Amino acid sequence: MTFKEYAVDKRVLIEENFREFVKDKEKTLPSLFKDQSILKNFEEFVLRGKLLRGILFLFTVEMLGKKIEKKDLDIAVAIEMAHSSLLIHDDIIDNDNIRRGKPSLFALYSTRGDKIKTYNSDHYGKSIAIVAGDVGFFLAMEIVSKTDKKYLSDLLNFYSKELLNVGFAEAVDSEFGQTPKEVLVEEIYEVYRMKTARYTFSLPMVMAAIVCGNNNQTKKILEILGESAGIIFQIKDDEIGLFGTEEMIGKPVGSDIRENKKTLIRSFLLNKANRQEKESLNKIFGNPKLDLKDIEYVKSVYEKHNISDLVSGEVNVLMDKTWAAFNKLKVNEKYRKILKQFLEFNLTRNA
Amino acid sequence: MTFKEYAVDKRVLIEENFREFVKDKEKTLPSLFKDQSILKNFEEFVLRGKLLRGILFLFTVEMLGKKIEKKDLDIAVAIEMAHSSLLIHDDIIDNDNIRRGKPSLFALYSTRGDKIKTYNSDHYGKSIAIVAGDVGFFLAMEIVSKTDKKYLSDLLNFYSKELLNVGFAEAVDSEFGQTPKEVLVEEIYEVYRMKTARYTFSLPMVMAAIVCGNNNQTKKILEILGESAGIIFQIKDDEIGLFGTEEMIGKPVGSDIRENKKTLIRSFLLNKANRQEKESLNKIFGNPKLDLKDIEYVKSVYEKHNISDLVSGEVNVLMDKTWAAFNKLKVNEKYRKILKQFLEFNLTRNA
Repeated sequence: MTFKEYAVDKRVLIEENFREFVKDKEKTLPSLFKDQSILKNFEEFVLRGKLLRGILFLFTVEMLGKKIEKKDLDIAVAIEMAHSSLLIHDDIIDNDNIRRGKPSLFALYSTRGDKIKTYNSDHYGKSIAIVAGDVGFFLAMEIVSKTDKKYLSDLLNFYSKELLNVGFAEAVDSEFGQTPKEVLVEEIYEVYRMKTARYTFSLPMVMAAIVCGNNNQTKKILEILGESAGIIFQIKDDEIGLFGTEEMIGKPVGSDIRENKKTLIRSFLLNKANRQEKESLNKIFGNPKLDLKDIEYVKSVYEKHNISDLVSGEVNVLMDKTWAAFNKLKVNEKYRKILKQFLEFNLTRNA
Repeated sequence: MTFKEYAVDKRVLIEENFREFVKDKEKTLPSLFKDQSILKNFEEFVLRGKLLRGILFLFTVEMLGKKIEKKDLDIAVAIEMAHSSLLIHDDIIDNDNIRRGKPSLFALYSTRGDKIKTYNSDHYGKSIAIVAGDVGFFLAMEIVSKTDKKYLSDLLNFYSKELLNVGFAEAVDSEFGQTPKEVLVEEIYEVYRMKTARYTFSLPMVMAAIVCGNNNQTKKILEILGESAGIIFQIKDDEIGLFGTEEMIGKPVGSDIRENKKTLIRSFLLNKANRQEKESLNKIFGNPKLDLKDIEYVKSVYEKHNISDLVSGEVNVLMDKTWAAFNKLKVNEKYRKILKQFLEFNLTRNA
């Protein structure tokens, strides 16, 4: 079984549990709070996602030898709700109208704003989306509060600290995106580590270890495995974002170049380029009127300086760390194989 | 002793505990996360406030016969942090540049945005403020996670549900403010109840009852007392906001009329006004170029139709509920007196 196949079943479980939670919650709301359909739209937004973090949490629970119970599905739901809240706020910050092929939440509420004749529908959309994000955090807190008292304190403590790091990393990243200021490679790594790697991989895995009552050593192994695999995940994402087709990246070709995203590859390119190339690259990165010729140019500089070798060098170091952690894991053979396949897929994926 | 005098001492305790928490947290942050001074600015923002909710929590703890411990101060800090997060997001939604005589957080970060030459300093300011609000929620969650395991689950469950109501009420209220649509009196009451009354009064008091291990009956009494006293608090706030001097309200005279805030008094005015008065009032409410003559006109309609009697009628009903709940409270005489004085002050205050 591949992780992808594993994910299909578990997604259904999370989805069912989530829909039930929303249905029950909806019943308790005064009618005034239903007019804006915040809960319904939030539900739709959450279920648009791949639910990777929730699924990875459940996978790790099983890998660590525990059967999945209702309370585990609850935690998976909480993880996905808080994650959607972060994305809803992110979309406002990045001014992204589209999230996974559909209007982002603030864009959705801007449309409602037009319909009900608000004074400024863009501002209205963002206002409601800010609140909807907050609402998602509170719902996640509520679900967490009902979990097993044995580990509630540990779980909440770990969870809130990691979310805090994501918050700080998001603030730094949004400054990266909104200033012409250059960024150090180590700063990029720190953002990758906190905003993507720990959050997407370490967090669900360590939360599973807490729920399973594992010791600190197992937690540490999962943390390191998650961090290194997660940074690779981000680097792969950057590669695909730079040179992938629209189909592969789900955004217009060259979006990352247009938005001048401060990626590791961009730093490598600017470091290796000669003066003339650097000048050209600086005109291309962040240019809203970017064309295909520009993307081809970036690609030519990338190839000329063998940037892919540099990237592979970084990835190899991270992969070694990942396997070193993996080999220390004492887990059921069936899940070990799925995890191995997942890590290999992460290394080679192109979408 | 008056509640105000009581508050002075307790404020110092909360402030000390909060500063210590921030100092410890600051030490654990990677240096990249310190560049934007989010934690420092958040600290300053929190301490600008009156800390009413945190103080009311501590007061109720003592009133219910428990000594204040470090873990209670922690909860008071958490309450104030999450409250500041809500205000930080509120200020973005209401486009309020000023909060308690100083720049609101998004305004502060817009200034930084200018300094570091961001592409759009207003958008930058709002981006960082959205994240800073989220950060405050996560910090509050972290503090709560470390509280007594005996009641952590109950405390977090109650707290998150109340915050959820505040979120929904904020969304409704922001729609009230951003559309020309008329609002029903019962809708105004529902927002008052959720956004102000339960949140400012019931929430800290019931949280104290949870911490003190009180039974559901005491919680219910405090909840009702908080709701009715809290709605009065909001009505008083509206009165002061309508006719108070700049000194009394801390905002330019007539701000609430200019912003067309959907208050109970505004509804009473429009209900009682004759056709011609209604036409004039509708031109005045929401007029950005409002002058003193307009405010005088609103006042004259208010007096002509004895709106203050209508308001008093509402307040009296609420006050009866408040005293009925108060009389059921079985608490230490010293604190009972302070609470009585606080409730009377709430009824008669003009600032």
